[in-house]
Amino acid sequence: MRTTIIAVLFFFTAMTATAKEGMFPPDGITPAMVKDMKTMGCQIDPADIWKPGAKCLAMAVVNLGGGTGSFVSPDGLILTNHHVAFGAAQSLSSPEQNYIRDGFLARGRGEEIPAPGYNVRVMTGFERVTSRFQPALRPGMDPQKCYRLIEKISQELIREGEKIPGNECAVARFYGGREFYRVTYLKIRDMRVVYVPARSIGEYGGEIDNWMWPRHTGDFSFLRAYVGRDGRPADWAIDNIPFRPLHCFPIARTALRPDDFTMIMGYPGTTKRWYTAAEIGNEVQAYYPERITLLDQYIELLEKCSAAGEAVKIKNAGVLKGLYNSIKNNRGMLAGLQRDQLRELKQSDERKLAAWIAARPDRKKKFGRLLGDIERLVAAEREVNSLSTIYGWLTRGCRLLDWALTLNKWSHEKTKKDPDREPGFMARDMAVKKERLPVNQRNLDLATDKAVLAFFLDKLLAADTTGVFKGLAREIQQAAGNNRGEKIAAFADRLYGNTRLADLDFKLQMLAADTRTLSSTGDAFLSLAARIQPEIDDFHRRKNAFTGRWLQLKPLYVEALMALRPETIRYPDANSTLRFSYGRVEGYSPRDAVHYAPFTTLSGVLAKNSGEFPFDLDAKVTAAAGPGRARYSDPFLGDIPVNFLSSNDSTGGNSGSPVLNGRGELVGVLFDGTYETLDSDFLFQPERTRSIHVDIRYILFIAEHVNQAINLLKELGTF
Amino acid sequence: MRTTIIAVLFFFTAMTATAKEGMFPPDGITPAMVKDMKTMGCQIDPADIWKPGAKCLAMAVVNLGGGTGSFVSPDGLILTNHHVAFGAAQSLSSPEQNYIRDGFLARGRGEEIPAPGYNVRVMTGFERVTSRFQPALRPGMDPQKCYRLIEKISQELIREGEKIPGNECAVARFYGGREFYRVTYLKIRDMRVVYVPARSIGEYGGEIDNWMWPRHTGDFSFLRAYVGRDGRPADWAIDNIPFRPLHCFPIARTALRPDDFTMIMGYPGTTKRWYTAAEIGNEVQAYYPERITLLDQYIELLEKCSAAGEAVKIKNAGVLKGLYNSIKNNRGMLAGLQRDQLRELKQSDERKLAAWIAARPDRKKKFGRLLGDIERLVAAEREVNSLSTIYGWLTRGCRLLDWALTLNKWSHEKTKKDPDREPGFMARDMAVKKERLPVNQRNLDLATDKAVLAFFLDKLLAADTTGVFKGLAREIQQAAGNNRGEKIAAFADRLYGNTRLADLDFKLQMLAADTRTLSSTGDAFLSLAARIQPEIDDFHRRKNAFTGRWLQLKPLYVEALMALRPETIRYPDANSTLRFSYGRVEGYSPRDAVHYAPFTTLSGVLAKNSGEFPFDLDAKVTAAAGPGRARYSDPFLGDIPVNFLSSNDSTGGNSGSPVLNGRGELVGVLFDGTYETLDSDFLFQPERTRSIHVDIRYILFIAEHVNQAINLLKELGTF
Repeated sequence: MRTTIIAVLFFFTAMTATAKEGMFPPDGITPAMVKDMKTMGCQIDPADIWKPGAKCLAMAVVNLGGGTGSFVSPDGLILTNHHVAFGAAQSLSSPEQNYIRDGFLARGRGEEIPAPGYNVRVMTGFERVTSRFQPALRPGMDPQKCYRLIEKISQELIREGEKIPGNECAVARFYGGREFYRVTYLKIRDMRVVYVPARSIGEYGGEIDNWMWPRHTGDFSFLRAYVGRDGRPADWAIDNIPFRPLHCFPIARTALRPDDFTMIMGYPGTTKRWYTAAEIGNEVQAYYPERITLLDQYIELLEKCSAAGEAVKIKNAGVLKGLYNSIKNNRGMLAGLQRDQLRELKQSDERKLAAWIAARPDRKKKFGRLLGDIERLVAAEREVNSLSTIYGWLTRGCRLLDWALTLNKWSHEKTKKDPDREPGFMARDMAVKKERLPVNQRNLDLATDKAVLAFFLDKLLAADTTGVFKGLAREIQQAAGNNRGEKIAAFADRLYGNTRLADLDFKLQMLAADTRTLSSTGDAFLSLAARIQPEIDDFHRRKNAFTGRWLQLKPLYVEALMALRPETIRYPDANSTLRFSYGRVEGYSPRDAVHYAPFTTLSGVLAKNSGEFPFDLDAKVTAAAGPGRARYSDPFLGDIPVNFLSSNDSTGGNSGSPVLNGRGELVGVLFDGTYETLDSDFLFQPERTRSIHVDIRYILFIAEHVNQAINLLKELGTF
Repeated sequence: MRTTIIAVLFFFTAMTATAKEGMFPPDGITPAMVKDMKTMGCQIDPADIWKPGAKCLAMAVVNLGGGTGSFVSPDGLILTNHHVAFGAAQSLSSPEQNYIRDGFLARGRGEEIPAPGYNVRVMTGFERVTSRFQPALRPGMDPQKCYRLIEKISQELIREGEKIPGNECAVARFYGGREFYRVTYLKIRDMRVVYVPARSIGEYGGEIDNWMWPRHTGDFSFLRAYVGRDGRPADWAIDNIPFRPLHCFPIARTALRPDDFTMIMGYPGTTKRWYTAAEIGNEVQAYYPERITLLDQYIELLEKCSAAGEAVKIKNAGVLKGLYNSIKNNRGMLAGLQRDQLRELKQSDERKLAAWIAARPDRKKKFGRLLGDIERLVAAEREVNSLSTIYGWLTRGCRLLDWALTLNKWSHEKTKKDPDREPGFMARDMAVKKERLPVNQRNLDLATDKAVLAFFLDKLLAADTTGVFKGLAREIQQAAGNNRGEKIAAFADRLYGNTRLADLDFKLQMLAADTRTLSSTGDAFLSLAARIQPEIDDFHRRKNAFTGRWLQLKPLYVEALMALRPETIRYPDANSTLRFSYGRVEGYSPRDAVHYAPFTTLSGVLAKNSGEFPFDLDAKVTAAAGPGRARYSDPFLGDIPVNFLSSNDSTGGNSGSPVLNGRGELVGVLFDGTYETLDSDFLFQPERTRSIHVDIRYILFIAEHVNQAINLLKELGTF
């Protein structure tokens, strides 16, 4: 009866509610949106979302590098997802103190443990700098030159901005290069772990439930940001003090209900809503099918490598988890694109656009060649894109090759001044790379590394019909063996038999060495890197020329579409800058006769608890469930809410985003989207695009009744 | 929006509706039930369900042998499930006329094709005959003797009843032997196929969707019953005339809606609602786990055999389909029994029963040993039960062995008179067996047959720790080979190398032969059968002794439980006799945050249509879907309803049952239950036990717009 009643409300709701598309930048608020938000139940003033340099909602939102978090106390306490602090807990764990399995709770400030390599960014500046890029945006410019100029201007803007100590800057492109913004962050680098629940709570359901609804995952954790005694960012020090943010989110005191207004803020990474029909066609016909085939074989290879023993299995587990995650995502994405016929939708859009262009001579003059140019561009870059996918996996998967290429490149770039170096080789970039070396080293298995090299070399040569990597191909051709497989094997044997790159100290030495020293080592991998670096640079130049061409065409495409449909809500694709989106608590119908309610409950958590991974719930949760939990129980559900759905627009990077109610109070933390609408990266579908969040009441329940985190609850002001 | 609105109604409904447990026999209507049915919306007089020898609802319901059907026209037209007529369509198909793939429609009486081996039974008598069994029910009687006496009395009752020509009788036990009924049928044996939709409609979703909701299967077909010109049952003849039933169901003219009253009538096979805790414990710990393990290996074996070639694959497909069906059922059943902790529920029940028994000396005297006796009985029969499972599969799977045993047994039984023969060897039984021989022969693959023999012989010997099959074991032990596997292989080689049982003519000859002739053939299989028949008879006697013991204990258990809870609704377990059940159109919640609406739609059919089997929909359906179908479209759904759920109590054997609305009009045809509540055979769970039906509107839509079956629609009175 209980869930039946909820459903009634939910569906009543669904009839009146409308999901809201759009990930809006902080300065993207229009009067129409304000009115809309108020109608939906927003009681805060949307102008309070972003006020440069002043107390505003954005000051409580932090960028965690690929994820998001939010301040929930005046003392720099940050709420984010479980897997964010998980890495720190992992690196600090030992067989005696297994923080991964058991979780971690600091019972006082003194017990908080440093999270090495962690930092957060608070946005302090968001300036439109499009005018600075005018020199690069002249029509008819060579695409390669356009790209280089944009990179150069960006570097200048960054250097200017970073003259103020503690600032970190980035230049972000909006609408494919129609607008440019300089974003300024305060980067806090003394981060500590406060509270991580047991993995069986924080990852409950694992890969099986990944992207799925109904969901029952306690994907939350707490960190704290520390600064120097002067209040400015500082490296870890014993007497650092908690950072005091200009704003922090209060915990909601009233029960969140179906139909309630919700707002999220965060750092979404990439969406493709302004993709052209030709680009979507390429995704459906080439990009995703190629990726899925490769991922499938790559996973098979790593599983085979991992079968060598428990130690290798552990080393490869992280990469494998990511690959399984990717292939599930890519399969869902491809299925969604096909099911929803997005290419056909866009084609129909572009037929209207073509007619609009053809209708007037001035439009013909400006946009007449646009759609044709885009189609040719998509076709022209297809091979480079395929190579780029394979090359990316090759260098990420074969660490020895990656290190060899980085060391070789760095030995050249280090002789230049920062402004003249290639992107990724400025002093600050190299500092990060050096810091990551030991972490990167930790899970190195040489047999796997070699197998991955051989696998992707084979794929690279097969895809390289135009001889981009002809030098590399020649070297392999000269190796012993009767066919490509044998030759690659012999080639790899020689490399791994004559290198010291698996040695951390050697790598650190080489990081400090010049080109001549590198060469004198006679290291097979380093010599190979030196020989093939020119063709890799050439490959990157080819890629950059395509990027430059897109920077010329995409703004035109956006301009034409905007002119065709001036009334449409406009927002730029996600680009890892701060966005907010608003919506409602809403369920959805994934298919005929099936309806998903927007809340799951603790009873649902217990019902899934088979005792077998990933449904092997912490026994303390079972013990804590039961009567007397009215404090966190929803009066309407008659149970503790665990996860909930809302129609807020989000994507990867939004993980850990605060979910706020109409009063600007925290009601949950975002951690996922739904499998049925993975393709919402291309098209938001109001009737079923949903975000998945952990309900704050489940977080408080776990904190109080499972981990007795009374200190934490007191700091949150809820105890 | 559309489905949203349905859902609202549905859930409103669910708050007021109560599913109704119970499969009631025709004479099981109580005043309380009548009141209850009226309150729920039943407008027909429940007394009209069964009136011996007169027009009543039961006269429109037919037993199809493992399934059910109903008369839907005064001219003997029968509506049942697709798979019922499928067998006929299969046997009548040729490469030129593929009725399986394309379906079949007779455009007039003359085109209707005979369905050999098909017959239907209309119940004409249902008499309580418990008093006749008093001699067998004296306390303290030897169980073996009790069993034999009950069989003997049953045979007498059947012979008496069948003295009237055209009658077919059976004796059915209710409440485990507390009551006995003689059921009399009119058996019509000239059956013809009228209309079978294409397999892609009638089996849409195949094994993937089997037992699943949401469902989109058009599992219906039409047959017609013919009789001689005198109106009495007759063999097929060109001038036979359609049977005119005393009643037929009119097609509903008003739209079926959520919450509407529904009644089903049919022939449910087996339920286990009166099982004791000890019996359920045995099902959970031994019966289902053993079956699942065996099925898994058996399926693997047949898949391996089928890999030999396309011809073998086709031959084994039917058996494999059944095995996949069984293993899915058994897995769901076991999971449900464990999830719902049915054993623990029963144990708690029986603790109350034990206390009730202990409370008074007269109860102690009568029931004091009951629960202990049952526990001992369950433990004692465990090995025989395991052997019985294996022996059953052995003789069903290895046809040469089955035929050898049948021929050998028959050569002895034929020398006796019918009344003295063992059950299953009366003249009428042998006629059926003979008729089935060619059908049974059709899919015989000797390599598979032999592999199955070897597989189950191995299992049988492993399970037979008490030497029930010691003669068989000895013969295998004497075969050549170093281990049991090799010995069994040699034993099987010798059998298959020296038999003519794969020859249909030889078998027909042997059916007519006496024991001496059989022996003189020197056929290895027939000689084996003659040698091991005594121990097989002994095995059956052991089993029968257990059955006899249950016939003594179960009625006592039922009596005690009824006395403990006199207020509970009572109905006997299903036993393949006519039952009716009433309920409502209702969805359910299969798990946390998921709600199933009670109707699926044509849009849902199209959404599943991937083009790949089993979702390769007949292209004519896609073509027929579209505007202008308002006639069959539900005004509320805004679409054509396909399948629907109701809370009627049903089980295997109910397939093809008519679903009636409160006015006694036909609204659908039952074809399945839901996976989540397979264990409702043990416990009806009102909140989620549901039956799945084809909506009559989908049937009419397919008939009119896909197959243009106007003649049929006219006969149904809907065109």
